Amino acid sequence: MDYFESVVQNLDNEFNKLFRGKEPKNLYEAMSYSVLAGGKRLRPVLLIAACECFGGDINYAMPFAVAVELIHTYSLIHDDLPAMDNDDLRRGKPTNHIVYGEAMAILAGDGLLNMAYEIMSHFCAENDEIKYVNAMKEIAAAAGANGMVGGQAVDILSEGIEISGDVLEYIHKHKTASMICASLAAGAIVGGADPGDVERFRKVGNLIGFAFQVQDDILDYKGDEIKVGKSLGGDERNKKTTYISLHGIDKATADFEKDFNCAIEILRKVKNTENLIEIVKNVLHRDK
Amino acid sequence: MDYFESVVQNLDNEFNKLFRGKEPKNLYEAMSYSVLAGGKRLRPVLLIAACECFGGDINYAMPFAVAVELIHTYSLIHDDLPAMDNDDLRRGKPTNHIVYGEAMAILAGDGLLNMAYEIMSHFCAENDEIKYVNAMKEIAAAAGANGMVGGQAVDILSEGIEISGDVLEYIHKHKTASMICASLAAGAIVGGADPGDVERFRKVGNLIGFAFQVQDDILDYKGDEIKVGKSLGGDERNKKTTYISLHGIDKATADFEKDFNCAIEILRKVKNTENLIEIVKNVLHRDK
Repeated sequence: MDYFESVVQNLDNEFNKLFRGKEPKNLYEAMSYSVLAGGKRLRPVLLIAACECFGGDINYAMPFAVAVELIHTYSLIHDDLPAMDNDDLRRGKPTNHIVYGEAMAILAGDGLLNMAYEIMSHFCAENDEIKYVNAMKEIAAAAGANGMVGGQAVDILSEGIEISGDVLEYIHKHKTASMICASLAAGAIVGGADPGDVERFRKVGNLIGFAFQVQDDILDYKGDEIKVGKSLGGDERNKKTTYISLHGIDKATADFEKDFNCAIEILRKVKNTENLIEIVKNVLHRDK
Repeated sequence: MDYFESVVQNLDNEFNKLFRGKEPKNLYEAMSYSVLAGGKRLRPVLLIAACECFGGDINYAMPFAVAVELIHTYSLIHDDLPAMDNDDLRRGKPTNHIVYGEAMAILAGDGLLNMAYEIMSHFCAENDEIKYVNAMKEIAAAAGANGMVGGQAVDILSEGIEISGDVLEYIHKHKTASMICASLAAGAIVGGADPGDVERFRKVGNLIGFAFQVQDDILDYKGDEIKVGKSLGGDERNKKTTYISLHGIDKATADFEKDFNCAIEILRKVKNTENLIEIVKNVLHRDK
């Protein structure tokens, strides 16, 4: 079992414990349905790997790793709602509202978002170190209206219309990259990284978050069956404008390479980043 | 201007600053619409008054006060959605989804819930004292699936059917009382109360939260025009079962009196609670 897989197994053990025997049953069942439906667990794996680069203990990273995945999952449940993207399937399974109804899906999303903060604030109260509060702050700033929620709002408002390169960049940066960026930064903070390395990890997060989306457009364009963006719960917008429609396939490919190489270069400047580099290569299908 | 009004004015100044000049504009406009639509500001006023009982500074209570009102407002926006209570009007104005559409209303709610945690975690990071983290933890525990979201879920599942007294109590306790309880406890914690007084304030929160709802049923029964529950953003469920249908008007009135008196009695045992007692009397229409 490689590093990625072993971290995912650790995470899944945590997720399984979260919902067991809790009341109200229907609500917790709806919440657990989407969390336990699988997915790459990219954000929490990045968070844990980032923490370990600085010698941090996985047990102290775990509450934050769980939180970023709960936040990611709530956003997928709400994105899939009829009023939003109106998706019936996610990862090959019926979406939350198809199984539990719209009202319960809205509440399941609300419950998961709140649970993320419950877990983090509980951990911060039990472990009185300012770095943990800083990690939570990093995640909260990325998840909200200045981050992921803002990206989703602009995406919804752009549906079916031509948008500029700036707007497309805004959507990618906020809807997808901001939580990836926060996962890396929060992991580094929990691990005890100095502010310079935290900032380096933020940059890496932005680069790979953007690279994902461009790669998704490239794979779409090439008709490739490996839908990276989808498996990451990334951009499934009703695309009229894509990076390729704006810039062409050659520039898109070159920009993807540039961002990927730049991210790896930054990571190589920080010690003990071997596992993290493997994960980034794996996720961007550059592991061969 | 009495104490209540002066605190509300302070709060409104804070709310006005929250959304100004922020992007994405449409999202922040939808968020601000419901926050600035008015309301009694009961929860934040209770939080600030509780803090002041223990000599706490209002400036340190303010971020938590703002947070509980943002959480309350997000819950109203989501509760009003077509898939939930399907309300077109709230406080005499069109509800959020009527003005901004369902998708933006869902995101405005998500944005407000997240903003509450952003504000609290930012404050906790700037003011490194464990009591602030404990106040945030208190609020997070009350807002989620074990608290308000759980109460709303059971309410939705009980719609249009006869329910037992236990289920009705569960709904009132979780949907309404839990955030009132957390507001009082968090205020006390920020003010520096000892654990005994924090627990007393939790008890008071449960008593007055429950008393509100019983009073709402009583006013409904009497056909009174003062709809306390509505103005508090409280229980607007499609009621088949009420406290009165279960127990009769005489027991309901007696229980309301008992809870009210019990809350006041507990508060009188704590020093400097005069303003807080006035607020409780005022809200429960026992100020004359």
